[in-house]
Amino acid sequence: METKSIMQLQKKEGLGESVKVKGAIHNIRDMGNIIFLLIRTRDGIIQCVYEGKDTDALEVQKRRAEDCVCVGGILTENEKAPGGVEIRLDYLEVLSTTKAEMLPLPVSKWKLDTSLEAKLNYRSISLRNIKERAKFRIQEGLVRAFREYLYREGFTEIHTPKIAGKGAEGGANMFKLDYFHKSAVLSQSPQFYKQMMVGVFDRVFETAPAFRAEKHSTKRHLNEYISMDLEMGYIDGFEDIMKTEAGYLEYAVELLEKEYKKELEILKVRLPKVKDIPVVRFQEIKEEVSKAYGTTIKNPNDLEPEEELLIGKYAKEKWDADFVFVTHYPTKKRPFYAMEDPQNPNYTLSFDLLFKGLEITTGGQRIHNYDTLIEKIKKRGMEKEGMEAYLDTFYYGMPPHGGLGIGLERLTMRLLDEENVRETTLFPRDIKRLEP
Amino acid sequence: METKSIMQLQKKEGLGESVKVKGAIHNIRDMGNIIFLLIRTRDGIIQCVYEGKDTDALEVQKRRAEDCVCVGGILTENEKAPGGVEIRLDYLEVLSTTKAEMLPLPVSKWKLDTSLEAKLNYRSISLRNIKERAKFRIQEGLVRAFREYLYREGFTEIHTPKIAGKGAEGGANMFKLDYFHKSAVLSQSPQFYKQMMVGVFDRVFETAPAFRAEKHSTKRHLNEYISMDLEMGYIDGFEDIMKTEAGYLEYAVELLEKEYKKELEILKVRLPKVKDIPVVRFQEIKEEVSKAYGTTIKNPNDLEPEEELLIGKYAKEKWDADFVFVTHYPTKKRPFYAMEDPQNPNYTLSFDLLFKGLEITTGGQRIHNYDTLIEKIKKRGMEKEGMEAYLDTFYYGMPPHGGLGIGLERLTMRLLDEENVRETTLFPRDIKRLEP
Repeated sequence: METKSIMQLQKKEGLGESVKVKGAIHNIRDMGNIIFLLIRTRDGIIQCVYEGKDTDALEVQKRRAEDCVCVGGILTENEKAPGGVEIRLDYLEVLSTTKAEMLPLPVSKWKLDTSLEAKLNYRSISLRNIKERAKFRIQEGLVRAFREYLYREGFTEIHTPKIAGKGAEGGANMFKLDYFHKSAVLSQSPQFYKQMMVGVFDRVFETAPAFRAEKHSTKRHLNEYISMDLEMGYIDGFEDIMKTEAGYLEYAVELLEKEYKKELEILKVRLPKVKDIPVVRFQEIKEEVSKAYGTTIKNPNDLEPEEELLIGKYAKEKWDADFVFVTHYPTKKRPFYAMEDPQNPNYTLSFDLLFKGLEITTGGQRIHNYDTLIEKIKKRGMEKEGMEAYLDTFYYGMPPHGGLGIGLERLTMRLLDEENVRETTLFPRDIKRLEP
Repeated sequence: METKSIMQLQKKEGLGESVKVKGAIHNIRDMGNIIFLLIRTRDGIIQCVYEGKDTDALEVQKRRAEDCVCVGGILTENEKAPGGVEIRLDYLEVLSTTKAEMLPLPVSKWKLDTSLEAKLNYRSISLRNIKERAKFRIQEGLVRAFREYLYREGFTEIHTPKIAGKGAEGGANMFKLDYFHKSAVLSQSPQFYKQMMVGVFDRVFETAPAFRAEKHSTKRHLNEYISMDLEMGYIDGFEDIMKTEAGYLEYAVELLEKEYKKELEILKVRLPKVKDIPVVRFQEIKEEVSKAYGTTIKNPNDLEPEEELLIGKYAKEKWDADFVFVTHYPTKKRPFYAMEDPQNPNYTLSFDLLFKGLEITTGGQRIHNYDTLIEKIKKRGMEKEGMEAYLDTFYYGMPPHGGLGIGLERLTMRLLDEENVRETTLFPRDIKRLEP
């Protein structure tokens, strides 16, 4: 007999008939002459009821939580059971057994009420909790939507190397490694490579790890994270990049509603408003927010985390917006390849996207003219060493282009209203954590 | 006026009307009183004909290959033009200009007849060649199919860390790095992590870089490559893993035929037979091939590259098969977590998949019983250090499971009948190459 998925059973396929399911014992409750087993599979939980304890053929009471089993019996309606159905148990085959008398964490509880540290230390156990694992199904939806949307928009997926020659994008925040007696670094961004590929495919994207050796440990930083990057050519301005991001977000919300409904319900996710995202200039919003909340501007060239939070609050109050595009960041704080605003070269044709007051994207138009790029490099006193192949690309012609990067874990964190990015990272890496 | 894609134009949308296209000048031929421009966009090439040279309003003859332009004119049928249509040029706007008088490689030729070294050194230029770039569109199709097929089969996509604590899977072939004064390595495989996640999601996959510090430089090895990994629980045997891989390959061929038809034609790809892949035992095929071709068996515990090629030849001759599953590899040559064949513990419940005589996959069933795993580790004289979280997972219960890894660049290489895996790697990393 074929085993069924929980989804099939909850659709009442085979109601009144004998069915089989394979899964782990999520919980076991021995009530005397009746035993309840909750079986966990990849798509949910089903209740099994066993009343044959007296005859004891199945030895159900010997089972422990996290034994893996194949169970069978008549599928029966029961309004009180999860999903409205249960199996009247008359078959149980043990597939594998746990060694543990007890689990280190009470994963079968609805809310896994324990510290983040404990959850991370026992990652392969804590994620057996239904709510905990649902977060990563949502995360799948977000990265899947990114790719699906971009395939449809004519982008090509690329894979660029994570081991890079020294000096690629400069900056001290890079992990160094020995590459056959040459010094190399771990890539902090596919920036140069994705730009180089715009001259080939016009539109490219990549979803891959990025590495930052930043020493600070905050609730929103990881030393290794998944960067969803895109770069597109033949744009009329950086507004085209924002439009693509908005299109992605709309598609992501659609996909989540369609394919991840169960997980949205488990986590009680309120999907954000993605239509008509307000667009505000860096300088203007900074001043508006300072006025609105009576704060003083400390750093005129960047947004402090507290300022981002206030912008999020302001956007919610003024426009009922979850997202806000902040444009025209100061040239000083943007990388050399950012295109300056011809109307005022102190600002760039760039943007960040804030989601409920947290930066989840940095993007903008890039310089595509070789001479302009060389001039900018000189002006900043940078070395051309290690950038030869990048610069060559511009020498041989490049279309006007721009792009962006989205931090997957941060996007997930904000969507799920989590306070720490580690909550939405499978195996986080930070200054203190290298295991598991 | 909206610009059109080449695909729209070749479907003759707007025939006889004025149309616009944005792209790079792939080639320019000045024939005296007529100039031919080939415009390259992400989805093809379109010919533009300019006969207004006398009046010279557009200054077409000033243009060079790799200038980026927006061109316009009446869309006209011409059987001899690529795709059967051409634009009678009456509009040309320069979007950006190349600095170069000449390109370092003749990318506008149909076949880019130059050395692999030159192609790799000028990667962002060589891929502007239509055939060269088509390879990476096919590669996109392969990785996209992997994900799409597995989503449909109930797998969850995961992202596991590439910076790992020392000792994870053992082996000397790992790049070492300094992680905030702790020693760390670059992950050579998501093996441990994907197994750990089987206890959570039942079925998982990942498409991500893997790093191997192997010192040999061969035509089929890379020091960084994209590994397509899957791991699935509740299997009846390793045959379930082979079935999943066969299902993927069938789906990949379908997707390529549907979405990548143009690229298949450009590269004249003969799609392989993916139905009914023959399955042969390691020991038996080794002997059969040795007999068939009069070769001597040098290494009884593994397959030499030459032997793999002969098995490929044999499979083609005997079964007209492009793929062949070789099963039951010797325990000696498989990792400690490989499940031994209860009928003969010298062999494992494992397989490789050969594609035209090249190993593109290693897979099999894993040990899921804690005690068996601990015993095996002891027997091999291995350290448990660094494996605590992995082993804990088994202590707390794990279903019977297995999985596989596919090398994306190798799979692409074989599909396209390339002789060197670097031909199908965007920016290869090997012992001599760290740039670009």
